[in-house]
Amino acid sequence: MRLRVYYEDTDTGGVVYHSNYLNFCERARSDVFFNQKITPVLAKGHFVAKRLEANYIASAKLGDELEVISELIEFKAASFKLLQNIYKSDKKIFELNISLVYVDFNSKPQKITQDVKELIMKLFSSRAITNKS
Amino acid sequence: MRLRVYYEDTDTGGVVYHSNYLNFCERARSDVFFNQKITPVLAKGHFVAKRLEANYIASAKLGDELEVISELIEFKAASFKLLQNIYKSDKKIFELNISLVYVDFNSKPQKITQDVKELIMKLFSSRAITNKS
Amino acid sequence: MRLRVYYEDTDTGGVVYHSNYLNFCERARSDVFFNQKITPVLAKGHFVAKRLEANYIASAKLGDELEVISELIEFKAASFKLLQNIYKSDKKIFELNISLVYVDFNSKPQKITQDVKELIMKLFSSRAITNKS
Amino acid sequence: MRLRVYYEDTDTGGVVYHSNYLNFCERARSDVFFNQKITPVLAKGHFVAKRLEANYIASAKLGDELEVISELIEFKAASFKLLQNIYKSDKKIFELNISLVYVDFNSKPQKITQDVKELIMKLFSSRAITNKS
Repeated sequence: MRLRVYYEDTDTGGVVYHSNYLNFCERARSDVFFNQKITPVLAKGHFVAKRLEANYIASAKLGDELEVISELIEFKAASFKLLQNIYKSDKKIFELNISLVYVDFNSKPQKITQDVKELIMKLFSSRAITNKS
Repeated sequence: MRLRVYYEDTDTGGVVYHSNYLNFCERARSDVFFNQKITPVLAKGHFVAKRLEANYIASAKLGDELEVISELIEFKAASFKLLQNIYKSDKKIFELNISLVYVDFNSKPQKITQDVKELIMKLFSSRAITNKS
Repeated sequence: MRLRVYYEDTDTGGVVYHSNYLNFCERARSDVFFNQKITPVLAKGHFVAKRLEANYIASAKLGDELEVISELIEFKAASFKLLQNIYKSDKKIFELNISLVYVDFNSKPQKITQDVKELIMKLFSSRAITNKS
Repeated sequence: MRLRVYYEDTDTGGVVYHSNYLNFCERARSDVFFNQKITPVLAKGHFVAKRLEANYIASAKLGDELEVISELIEFKAASFKLLQNIYKSDKKIFELNISLVYVDFNSKPQKITQDVKELIMKLFSSRAITNKS
C-alpha cells in the first residue's frame, strides 16, 4: 500500500506528526479489505487496537512517498497480531507491532469465528504464523 | 471557549493547518452543549454543516491561546446560522459563517421542533437574530 | 485525484467529519505539484488559504472512493481562486471555492511572479480564467 | 491535564480513533511546558518520539472528560521515558510508555545538556527515576 505525505500529516517540526504513522498503518489494514471490495466492518463485528509497539527509525516529510507492508505474525482465539513496516525508498523508517482484537458492535471482545479467521488469513500476507487459537 | 494550539494542529508551514480552525469552531459548538451537561447528539437528531464561509485573517502557531466566540445570527425551519470568530490576544484571526442543518439519524434534514429551537436559542448567545422559521 | 475514505476521516456520526473535505481538496492541490515531481513549497514562498466557501451536498462514509476535480477560476496579483468539486460515483457531494494567497516564508503576502503564475496556470486545468493580475 | 472528547477525535466506530490517544498524551507533554510559560521547542532542540508501547484498556466516546497523568520513569544521555496514563472518571482506559529523544533542528539526536535535564526533571512529576545518564 503506497501513500503520499500531505501538509495535514506534518507538524511544525517539519516532519510527519508521530501518531500519523499509526494512521498510515490503519489505512493499509483497511485497504486489504477495500481491495477485495469488502469493508473492514464485518457482519458481526470489527477489529480494534488492543496493544501496540512502535519504533520510529527515521522521519518522513511533505511529499514523501511511503509504502506500508503488513505481515500477519500471530493468531489467537479473539485477536491477531500484525507487523507493519513503513518504507521510504526501500529504507525502513517505522515499525509497528499491533495486536487487534475482534469486538462486536457493543465493543465486547468475541471469539473469531472460522469464516472470519479464514478471511483474515487470506487477506494478510503471512510468512510465519504462530497459530495459538 | 478557550483552547491551546498543539503540535497536532500545526503543519510543516509552522502555523495551524487551515482546516483545523473549523475543528476549533466545532469544539466551541459542542462545548455549549457539554457545559450544560448535555450532548450535541439530541434525542431525534443532530446538526451538521450545510454551508460555510471562512476568512483567514492571521495565523496561529504552536502554543498560542485562542478564544472562540459564537453568535447565533439566523434561525430557519430546518437550520440555523452561527458567526464564529477566533481571537488571539483580542485580535481576530479567523471568521466563520456556518449554516447548520438539523438531520435525523439517517442524515435526512428535518424540521427543528420547538423544544430543540428553544434549546439552541438558550445555548448560543444571540445579539440580533433574524427569525425566519 | 482519487482518494479513499478511511476510519480516520470519519466521526461518530458515521460520515466524513466536515473539515476533512477541506483536507481532501488540499491533497488534490498538492498532488498537482507532486505529479510534476515538484513540491508546493516553491523557491520564494507558498500558497495559503485566504478565504473559502464550502457547500456540503451529500456525505461520504468509510470506504467510499472520491474524486476531486480542481479548476482555476481567477488570477489576481497576489492570489488565485480555485473551484474544487468532490464527486462520489459521478455525484457531486461537496463544492469548495477557495482563494489562495502567495506568501513568503514569513507569511507575508507577496506579488506572484511571472514564472510562478505560469507554473500555476500550467498545473491547474482552467476553463474560463478571469485574469485580473 | 484534562481534556474533552470532540467529534474530530472519534471515528465511525463511535469511539475515539486509536491514534488520537497518542495526541492526547502529546498535548499533556506540551502542556507541562506551556503551563510554565515556555514552549517545548527549546533553544537548541526538542524531543521526538523514539519508541512507544500503548495499551488500550477501554474506549472513550464523544463528550467524555479525560485526564492524562504523566510520570517520568527513566533518564538517559539523549532521551527520557515517560509513563502516561489516561483516566476516565478515575478508571484507567489507556497506558502509554514513551521514549523521547532529544534532537537538534536537523533531527539529529544530541546529548541532553544539564540545564535541559534539570528543566525536564522539574517539569514532569517523578516517582522513581532510574537515572542512567
